[in-house]
Order: sequence, then C-alpha cells, then structure tokens
Amino acid sequence: MKLKLLLTGNELMTGDTLDSNSAMIAQMCLDSGIQVNYKATVSDDLDQLVGEISRLSASSDMLIINGGLGPTTDDLTAEALAGALNVDLEEHPQAIKHLIAWCDTRNYDLSEANRKQAILPKGVEIIDNQKGSAVGFKIKLGHCLIFCTPGVPHELKTMMSREILPQMRSLLPTSHQPKRVRFRVFGYGESSLQEHITKTYPNWPKQLELGFRASMPLLELKLKVDYQEDHKLLEKWHTKVEKLVGGHIVTDDSRSLAKVVVDLLAKQNKTVTFAESCTGGKIASMITEVSGASDVFEAGFVSYSNTIKTSVLGVSEADLHEFGAVSETVVRQMLSGALKASGADVGVSVSGIAGPNGGTNEKPVGTVYLAWGSQNLVQTRAFYFPGNRVFFQKIVAALALDLIRRDLLGIEEAPIYFRERKIPN
Amino acid sequence: MKLKLLLTGNELMTGDTLDSNSAMIAQMCLDSGIQVNYKATVSDDLDQLVGEISRLSASSDMLIINGGLGPTTDDLTAEALAGALNVDLEEHPQAIKHLIAWCDTRNYDLSEANRKQAILPKGVEIIDNQKGSAVGFKIKLGHCLIFCTPGVPHELKTMMSREILPQMRSLLPTSHQPKRVRFRVFGYGESSLQEHITKTYPNWPKQLELGFRASMPLLELKLKVDYQEDHKLLEKWHTKVEKLVGGHIVTDDSRSLAKVVVDLLAKQNKTVTFAESCTGGKIASMITEVSGASDVFEAGFVSYSNTIKTSVLGVSEADLHEFGAVSETVVRQMLSGALKASGADVGVSVSGIAGPNGGTNEKPVGTVYLAWGSQNLVQTRAFYFPGNRVFFQKIVAALALDLIRRDLLGIEEAPIYFRERKIPN
Repeated sequence: MKLKLLLTGNELMTGDTLDSNSAMIAQMCLDSGIQVNYKATVSDDLDQLVGEISRLSASSDMLIINGGLGPTTDDLTAEALAGALNVDLEEHPQAIKHLIAWCDTRNYDLSEANRKQAILPKGVEIIDNQKGSAVGFKIKLGHCLIFCTPGVPHELKTMMSREILPQMRSLLPTSHQPKRVRFRVFGYGESSLQEHITKTYPNWPKQLELGFRASMPLLELKLKVDYQEDHKLLEKWHTKVEKLVGGHIVTDDSRSLAKVVVDLLAKQNKTVTFAESCTGGKIASMITEVSGASDVFEAGFVSYSNTIKTSVLGVSEADLHEFGAVSETVVRQMLSGALKASGADVGVSVSGIAGPNGGTNEKPVGTVYLAWGSQNLVQTRAFYFPGNRVFFQKIVAALALDLIRRDLLGIEEAPIYFRERKIPN
Repeated sequence: MKLKLLLTGNELMTGDTLDSNSAMIAQMCLDSGIQVNYKATVSDDLDQLVGEISRLSASSDMLIINGGLGPTTDDLTAEALAGALNVDLEEHPQAIKHLIAWCDTRNYDLSEANRKQAILPKGVEIIDNQKGSAVGFKIKLGHCLIFCTPGVPHELKTMMSREILPQMRSLLPTSHQPKRVRFRVFGYGESSLQEHITKTYPNWPKQLELGFRASMPLLELKLKVDYQEDHKLLEKWHTKVEKLVGGHIVTDDSRSLAKVVVDLLAKQNKTVTFAESCTGGKIASMITEVSGASDVFEAGFVSYSNTIKTSVLGVSEADLHEFGAVSETVVRQMLSGALKASGADVGVSVSGIAGPNGGTNEKPVGTVYLAWGSQNLVQTRAFYFPGNRVFFQKIVAALALDLIRRDLLGIEEAPIYFRERKIPN
C-alpha cells in the first residue's frame, strides 16, 4: 500500500510554520500499520497543486492532502482537486449544513468567505470535522483514494483517528495487524534509555521494533510488532520493559503527566497546591488544563518577588536575606505557606534561576530548588537544568509534577535524575 | 529562479523527527530574496533518491539536498547523486583531508565508516563544513546547480550562511529584492480580517501579496512585494493597513503578545498582577516566559475554588453565593484583592467555565468574566468562547493580556471582540 502526503501552504514554503502535521499523520498511520513513503510540499499555487495531485495520485494507492481548506483566497485545495479530477465545483449540501450549524452555535453570521468552504469538487464524499468549520472530503482519482484534511492540528488529529484511519485499516490484509505499546517516561534521555535497554537485553527479538520519540517533557518509548503472530511476544516484552524502566514510566496510555497526577490525587481523595517562583504559573496551568482539575486543586501561588514570598506565603525575611530566594530553606517555607493558605494535602514549591540573567558562580542559571510533600513530610532537592528560559520552565514544571506523582505512588527507588542533575561545583 | 528542496531521512518519513531544517533553509533563502518553491521528502531509499534528484533538477535552477551525508549505511546522498549524474564515486582528496584534520583535532581514529564520508561523485566541488565531519558538495546537473548539505542543524546553518547563500545571491538579478511587513493581530479571525481588508480596498494592488497565518492566539497579517521598484508601494500600504486594523495590531515585529505587554509595563514603570480562576495560571505563565518579567510582575493568584477566592483575595462570601463565582461582582472583587495583596499597579482577573462540565443554561460552558485596570478604574466584561477546554484557556489568557495592552496604550476604540463574543441568550 503506497501512501503519499501532499502538504500545502505558503507558510510551510516560507518556513514561517514548522510542519508538524505531516509528522503527526505519519505517526498515526504507522501505528495503524501504514508507512508514509513520500511527502511533497507546495505553496498555495493552483497550477502547482493540480500538477502534484495528478502526479502523486498516479503513483500511489492513497494520498492525504493537508491544508488549504480554509475560507481565504489562498485556500485552494478544493479548486485544485476539481482541476485534477476535471470536474466542476459546487456547493455541497452536507458541507453547507455543517457550516451553518457551526456558525449558529457560535452566534456568528455565515460570511461569504466561510461559505466558500462548502464549495467542493462534484462527487466528493464529506468527512466530518467535529472540531472546526472546514469539513474534509474524499474521492477516488484513478485507483488512488484522496483524502483532503484541514491544516488546524487538533481538527486534523480528530479527523484522522475517527474517520480516516479506520477506513485505511479496513484496506489492509488481515495477517498484517500491527500492535504497539507506548510508554511515557520521565527522567531518561533517548540515548541513555536506549543504552539501558540494549545493554540489559543484548538479544532483543528482531520482530520487535524498539522506538523512541522525544516529546517534551516526556520521552515516548515504543514497542511494536507488525503481525498478529507476534502479539504474544509484545505482551511478554511489555512486562519486561515495564520492570526495567520501573517508576520512570508515567503511563502506558496516552494521558499527560498532569492528567496522571490529577487522576492519582482524585483516587486518593487529596488536593494539591503549588508555590511557584521561576515556573511562573506553569505547574498550575498544566494541572488546570486537565478536565476535572477542580476536584483536586484549589489554589496556586505565583510568588515571583521576595516581598510576595514573605507577605503571601510567610517566608521569613531574615532567611530570604541569609540564604537567598533560591535555597532549600526558602522552598521549604514556601511550600509550608502554600499548604497552610490553601488547605491542600500535598504540594510543591519551586524557586530557581530561569535566566538568561540572575545567575551567579555559586548558583548558575539553571539552578532550581524544589520542596514537595505534605505538612508532615517535606522533601527538598536542588537540580541543575542549563538551557534556555522556556525549556527550563517546562522541564522544571514537569519535574515538580513527577515528584508529586512519585510521592503519591510511594515509589522508594530514587529516579535517575537525582544522580544526573546535580549542580556543578 | 526556481529553488527546490529535497529532504532525506527515514526519521522524517516516520514523523519521529520534526523537519525544522527545511524551514530554516527556506527562511534563510527568503531573507536573501529567493523563495523555495517546492519541497520533497523521501526516505533513505536509493532508487527513490536517484529518481527525485533527476526529476527535481530537470525543473529547477537550484536544488538543495539536505541530509544523508553521515557515516552510516543509510546515508545515501553521495551514491544517489552519482547515480543521477551517471558518474562514479571516488575518494575526494579535499574531503579526506578535512576528515583527517577533523579526527585529529578530536583525537579520534579515522574509522572506515567515517572514511565513507569522503567518497563522493566524480566532479563535485567541496563546500567547507566548519562545524562537522561531513563536507558539503555541489555540482551542476543539466542547468541545475545542486548543493548537498548536512542534516545536523547547526552545521547546515553555518554552511548556508557562509558558503551557499552568498553564491545564490550573486546569481540574482539586481531588481529582484523581496521585502515584507508582518503584523501580529489579536481579535480578528483570518476570514473576518480578509473580508475587512478586501471590502475596504477592492482595488488592492496586484504587486502586493496579502497573506495570513493563524498562529494562536495571534493572527499574522503579511504584506509582501518582490521587486525593488515596489518597496515604496509596500511602505504606503504598511501605513494604510496599520490605520485600518488599528488597535488590533499587537506589533509589527516578531514579539509575542506577552512580550509586548512586558515591554509596555517596563516602559511605563508599572507592575501587573493576575487573579486567575479558569485560566489556572496560564496568564502568569505566559508573562513569566518573557525574559525580564521579574521587573514588571511580582505575584499571581490561582484561585480555583470559592474558599480561596474568599480567604486569599477577600471576595465576599455573600456575593459569591448570590451572584456565583462566574460573575461581574466576583471578578471585580478578585481584581481588587489581587491588586491589594500584590501591590501591583494594574491587573486582570478571570472567572469562567472552561468545561467540559459546569455549564448551566444561563452560563454555558465558554462563558467568562474578566475585570481589568487599576484600583482607580476597573472595567469588566463578559465573553463567550465555546470550544474545548485548552483552547478556551489559551484564548482567554491571551484576551486578558490584550485587554491590559489596550488599557496601557489608552486605546479608546472598542475591539471587534466586544461585539462578536457575546453570551447567547
């Protein structure tokens, strides 16, 4: 089965936008056992688009076209496909119905520009878009099945998983039944985890594909087999790898780290709070992105300045002066203050130097102290994550959530990052 | 001048690696006045590579091939190029010299695998790689000049700027001098802005390209001309469009909305605070991602529960009971409490229903109240943003920053979203 991608958009051509959609499509298809074997990217140019649709469809079984379904004049996919098919464009009744309903729920008027999104090549079949105004559509050109998909990532993702992939899978031979396990791991880098696994298991079975994908802040570890006969093997190695990587595994489903923490808190009937300095609200924001967060989270404090650490969280002014804001003493008091003010059962506090300024010889940019636990048992630790500001904030926020996760699970074995992330001296 | 890109690598095909190189190449070329007009991506497959090199070189003046110069067996660019050129491979004296020197400075032995990086198609000219072991090379195939470049981003970048771009620029006619303006806009959707512009200016000049790019939470509006003779025209329309879109323009440089707000606060010597309920720390997080945030931001409060709204921000329990947490009265008191507790000059408070649960007939999911301003002058308003939870939080956090921005700038004209985002009733 030959699957090709055609990506459209001037913003991809100029480099204004990183093409993450094609990687998402490729990964989702691969998980369903179909490998993308060619990608072409063109700008919003009608002739070029018509030419590529004709060329690519002539040499493949399936073609996914991504982008160009929007309401503006540079959205040309429908017109180009009509050109390649040599058919007229017409308003599609199902598409216009979708658009009217879409605008209706949002209290918009249906503009002329929006109406254009329903003008499609004659003969296409609509693919529902549950997330956006632009419907997808599909049609055969010669022996190639063409899918036209929206450029907005979450719309694309939903359309792929609910509509397009099930259809693709139904076209595969029955023995070809890929199955995979994905672990989401926190704490290991790609190369260190690979080394750990291959050194422990030098005779790794050939049928079992081992893959990694860095997906900040987590590392995805993938085990995959292609055929039904190897499903048992996958199960066996699922267990072996799970044991080896241990408490570093956050989940083997698709939940985010924050969602895992929210679920754990809910299960244990506990609430959490955060006192954030250098992460500036990111930890609270990660938690509250999870639906159901309100059951486990009541309050967070972004105490960026020293004054606020004292006035709101009750950190001792003398200690701030003596040890500095980035110190064990201060994160301990920040946590204690946040637990008291919020009434939460557990919490994390964070104080560090995100940079690019504010570093010293003793505490360079990238230094961070965390305190976590409950009023009865607080743990603290210093870490060192040099790198740019946004990277630092992301990794430290994830670290805070991971420490809470380990605490809630009662994992006693120290994580690998306790060894690896020491402050240089 | 037709410039095409050929990207190679299984990791690009499977989606394990996001292709950032092609965006980098495209941006660098564009800044030099040359637009990439086609990209093809193939896996490490010799036949496919040879085919694509032949096909692409036949229809372009320049072809940049990226990747496949490494020492491993799946690095096939040299072999594929030799196939397309129909010449032999041979060890290139300049390349082997580079490799020996490279290993020498690093105290490595020159391995057989590394030696492969000097086996190149007969007749190529070496392009120096100051950053890595793999040299680049170039050669003409028909009338197309082919450049082979390394996949490691910083090696590619250096090679592009020092070697390849100067050569490309020397081939351009002097009249061809592209120039562009980019506005970052908040409040308009792509279609409504396009309609606004094209209705106001039905005789839009043909030489002036109008482009849009949705880049949540901002919309990018681009004006571009290709030739020196049109630079004046661009300047004129820069002013016209700026007037038309008015206060909705956040910036005409590359700053984020949060950075613009931080810069404005710094300039006016003011500090800001946030009392966030449904945005859960996202506003504070956006501000603190900006380096220099500590000069303008001291404290934020994530008051997710009613208890905390009362205990930390001093919201009246009776009012919470009477009007509900999502109400004008409560956001007004949240803001007042946050301004008092933080001592900040200005602030925003937010309370809304992010969903998927918690909506009522009167206040459906997507309803949000904001209060903004200073102790002396507080404004409030209700908005309605149905959609998923994460989208809701992102757009509301951006809205909060935009309201602060408008307040700081003293913009009196009401933004378009005051009209469009009413709660249905």
